[in-house]
Amino acid sequence: MKLKLTVEYDGTRYVGWQVQQNGPSVQAALEAALARIAGAPVDTIAAGRTDAGVHAAGQVVSFTPPREVPLKAWRLGVNSILPDDVAVVAAEEVDDAFDARRSASGKRYRYRLWNGGTRSPLRARTAWEVFRPLDVGAMREASAQLVGAHDFSAFRAAGCDARTTVRKVRACALSGASGDEIILEIEATAFLRHMVRNVVGTLVEVGHGKRSAGSVGDVLRSRDRALAGPTAPPHGLCLVEVSYGRR
Amino acid sequence: MKLKLTVEYDGTRYVGWQVQQNGPSVQAALEAALARIAGAPVDTIAAGRTDAGVHAAGQVVSFTPPREVPLKAWRLGVNSILPDDVAVVAAEEVDDAFDARRSASGKRYRYRLWNGGTRSPLRARTAWEVFRPLDVGAMREASAQLVGAHDFSAFRAAGCDARTTVRKVRACALSGASGDEIILEIEATAFLRHMVRNVVGTLVEVGHGKRSAGSVGDVLRSRDRALAGPTAPPHGLCLVEVSYGRR
Repeated sequence: MKLKLTVEYDGTRYVGWQVQQNGPSVQAALEAALARIAGAPVDTIAAGRTDAGVHAAGQVVSFTPPREVPLKAWRLGVNSILPDDVAVVAAEEVDDAFDARRSASGKRYRYRLWNGGTRSPLRARTAWEVFRPLDVGAMREASAQLVGAHDFSAFRAAGCDARTTVRKVRACALSGASGDEIILEIEATAFLRHMVRNVVGTLVEVGHGKRSAGSVGDVLRSRDRALAGPTAPPHGLCLVEVSYGRR
Repeated sequence: MKLKLTVEYDGTRYVGWQVQQNGPSVQAALEAALARIAGAPVDTIAAGRTDAGVHAAGQVVSFTPPREVPLKAWRLGVNSILPDDVAVVAAEEVDDAFDARRSASGKRYRYRLWNGGTRSPLRARTAWEVFRPLDVGAMREASAQLVGAHDFSAFRAAGCDARTTVRKVRACALSGASGDEIILEIEATAFLRHMVRNVVGTLVEVGHGKRSAGSVGDVLRSRDRALAGPTAPPHGLCLVEVSYGRR
């Protein structure tokens, strides 16, 4: 028997999901709380290793409990120990074959942009504030070209250790044409390192007229990282949902 | 000539709008930044003296500039000095008779509740997390009884120094019947101290079945603070908009 936890966190003060030497990680905070409930060390596997500053509304984590504990304790007990910026929002029993990372059949990310002309203190932790007006229509046209199975090498970070670079983007939609808040929702089988942030950095260049909407397809086909835009900052990004089951 | 600023802030780390001895205030942060731009001390008047921990998306502030400065500097220049959790989102010139507090003809507040069953780290700063399920239908029925001109003494904090206790509530609407996020929007000519938070504390008791929806009208008519519910915490509250002009 394994456990599957759905975890929400505000990533602002963390070095990312994964345990690292240079600061607090979400994984370390969660494993410490789980170990207190279990009375023994716990090793977790997460669906996605979110970067420093990236948030999650639905990160999924799996682990083998070192001893039997009532299911409720893995949510309520763990939450009473966790810091305010991390919480287990659901806990369920799954079979031994389940692995939060390998069993995942898809992931959905949301990237939030604020284009209101000035800073927005109430959105500062969760949105990238872009001051110059964005042409959302052009950005939408560009984002549609990413849907489908493609080699996403052009949007892949240098340190990415994925063996294959083809990913199937099931949906890539931009909302908020009229308002100041623009939200990109992107769903794929899996993502390369920094893929969403590199897509957003490129779309913002489209929104500013630095490149045409049609050119995004060319960037994709080039498989050349140097032709895509800069990496958007991490704090606008949120891992919303991980799906399991049929691919 | 006077200036009217629209100010947004995350109130988490402040003792409230007003300058106080016991900690940092939004007013002190703003006046320090304005003084740097003006080269002289600046005294501001705000539409509403929000409490410690309360947020604002549209607080309005007026002041007489000690010297002439390009209008743009009162927004962009001031924002470059202000801390990340406070920003001037609009600046405009108004005539000398304008007073952010006395000229206001109405205010709109939003109170955000999170009823998702567990803590929500991404909403922790801006929503009151209520764990037991709420009956939103009953809360909606109760909130409708507050609309109109009434003596709101029953929802008034002990230290409130308002001379009259009659306030006209123009709208009081609860959204989010299906989801876990429940939002109260309340608009009135003006508010008594803690009025919104006392209303929310009472509505949550209705939502939990501790009192009937119909009893809220009785509480209102009693003008007895002891009959209303507890004061909801400040961090769910946000001053959204202040209106001027015809009452």
